Amino acid sequence: MTKLLGGVEAGGTKFVCAVGTGPSDIHETRFATTSPEETLQRVLAFFSPYKPELAALGIGAFGPLDLRQESPTYGFITSTPKPGWQNTDIAGVIARELQVPVALDTDVNAAALAEGRWGAARGLSDYLYITVGTGIGGGIVSGGRLVHGLVHPELGHCLLPKHPDDTFAGSCPYHGDRCFEGLASGPALAARWGCDPAALPADHHAWDIQAFYMGVAIANCVCTLSPQRVILGGGVMAQSQMLGKVQTATAGYLNGYVRHPAIEENIESYIVLPALGSQAGVAGALALAGQKIEEV
Amino acid sequence: MTKLLGGVEAGGTKFVCAVGTGPSDIHETRFATTSPEETLQRVLAFFSPYKPELAALGIGAFGPLDLRQESPTYGFITSTPKPGWQNTDIAGVIARELQVPVALDTDVNAAALAEGRWGAARGLSDYLYITVGTGIGGGIVSGGRLVHGLVHPELGHCLLPKHPDDTFAGSCPYHGDRCFEGLASGPALAARWGCDPAALPADHHAWDIQAFYMGVAIANCVCTLSPQRVILGGGVMAQSQMLGKVQTATAGYLNGYVRHPAIEENIESYIVLPALGSQAGVAGALALAGQKIEEV
Ligand SMILES: Nc1ncnc2c1ncn2[C@@H]1O[C@H](COP(=O)(O)OP(=O)(O)O)[C@@H](O)[C@H]1O
Ligand SMILES: Nc1ncnc2c1ncn2[C@@H]1O[C@H](COP(=O)(O)OP(=O)(O)O)[C@@H](O)[C@H]1O
Ligand SMILES: [Zn+2]
Ligand SMILES: [Zn+2]
Repeated sequence: MTKLLGGVEAGGTKFVCAVGTGPSDIHETRFATTSPEETLQRVLAFFSPYKPELAALGIGAFGPLDLRQESPTYGFITSTPKPGWQNTDIAGVIARELQVPVALDTDVNAAALAEGRWGAARGLSDYLYITVGTGIGGGIVSGGRLVHGLVHPELGHCLLPKHPDDTFAGSCPYHGDRCFEGLASGPALAARWGCDPAALPADHHAWDIQAFYMGVAIANCVCTLSPQRVILGGGVMAQSQMLGKVQTATAGYLNGYVRHPAIEENIESYIVLPALGSQAGVAGALALAGQKIEEV
Repeated sequence: MTKLLGGVEAGGTKFVCAVGTGPSDIHETRFATTSPEETLQRVLAFFSPYKPELAALGIGAFGPLDLRQESPTYGFITSTPKPGWQNTDIAGVIARELQVPVALDTDVNAAALAEGRWGAARGLSDYLYITVGTGIGGGIVSGGRLVHGLVHPELGHCLLPKHPDDTFAGSCPYHGDRCFEGLASGPALAARWGCDPAALPADHHAWDIQAFYMGVAIANCVCTLSPQRVILGGGVMAQSQMLGKVQTATAGYLNGYVRHPAIEENIESYIVLPALGSQAGVAGALALAGQKIEEV
């Protein structure tokens, strides 16, 4: 008997709710993220007709999240800057109302899982998914398992050297112009150049500076984690010149120190775009639900 | 029947050879690292009397190392800057001459393993061992397993922002003043201040700059890996004022973003010194040998 799985991609700008088994067998609905009450009400409304058949539900959510099973606020979105969403119990509400086992992880961990299962990291044990959009985040798989540790990775808040031409004050409320997200997220680009980043021409100097930050951050991930592949997603990667610039920048900053043909000869298949595109988030939520069933 | 285990700590300045089962049951010899031929000859001479009883031998070596089982140069020290040691087959020579199963890993991975088994990271699944000495390296355990990935981590070559007061040109042959090792290793300190770093007084500004680099690097590891604890070893940590300075700096750079009592309230037990001290390397080599026996 195939069991019905549910998935929720809980993003800062939109939510996607789905039932299915993977990216090629899915029924989904998307709506804008409003208040927690209203948004969670819409999630429950989507799933309630499936309640009798639903075997498990996975949630890939924006964070930071409390993922410590033993914590009284397990399953909560915690210190997010998103207005109204601080200390929101997301996993608990859904589990109680739908009476179903719920697996919660970060949106980027969910996307990383989906790319490993169905996308650009199939068959790999060590890889990294980075999204550069409204925020910057990373999902890391090491030895075949998602990295969690004490809390969960917050790759967007790694501290980076500043590009010599860059006088922007930064957009991170915690780290100003010191961290990756404060320097290179979509909102950072918008604030630095005073326009929608989608409107900046492909040959604008903005993209050299952007490639510097992304290249340094990826080089640091290579030195820290030694991934077999790096997948780059998020709205900013819609700039089609970026992938090549980032590949060149990363190889340049590593400067021959990490000797491996994957980096020295095949950087085009080492740093790649997601294969699942915008489907990765919700497919990853289904993959989380699938893992949950195997556990229980 | 207890089997005899062998361990080799293969360092850039000294080698330690040992037989035993762990840090409290060990017989060891140390000698200076000279040419590969002479040094490996001394290793073989130490172990040959034990050859009939030796069940496995672990090596924790300076690198970079080729750890890909399928590679023709598996078990080699590869692109090291150490004169004479480029492309040295270390694991193969020892395995052939002693006719014993050999496990090779980086010196820092060995030390991390030892601290997890007998030292400052007992019972933890996710932690990090960083050594700041002649070089800078990191051994990472995630989900109970050493991180290997494509090659192995090279934490010392992460790119860092430069301290505003620092005009030093850096000592890394690959990255100059851009990377952690080029800015904060023992030799970098010696070159920046023109003296043996052990001779710099505890209140010298050198240690504020050093704490800046170490604090930023550790904050980045926290954002990337989310470890449950960070262990700091190596010659530079003999400066007893450094631990407190680094704890304060790391917490300052994270600036409240990563919310967890381990970081917000107990930084003194989050960033710690090794429990095994100078024993970690050779004990880790024995631990590698122990793992090898379980495999074969
Ligand atoms: N073509 C583009 N060029 C540059 N930036 C873009 C482009 N399209 C979207 N963005 C930026 O990406 C961000 C949205 O990222 P996205 O990954 O789509 O969503 P989110 O991070 O909110 O899930 C916005 O800040 C937007 O300005
Ligand atoms: N008390 C000290 N203060 C500062 N630096 C020191 C001190 N003792 C040793 N060092 C530095 O540490 C480095 C040696 O590191 P160590 O970890 O002992 O060896 P290695 O890295 O070669 O295995 C040297 O560069 C030395 O200058
Ligand atoms: Zn930040
Ligand atoms: Zn370097």
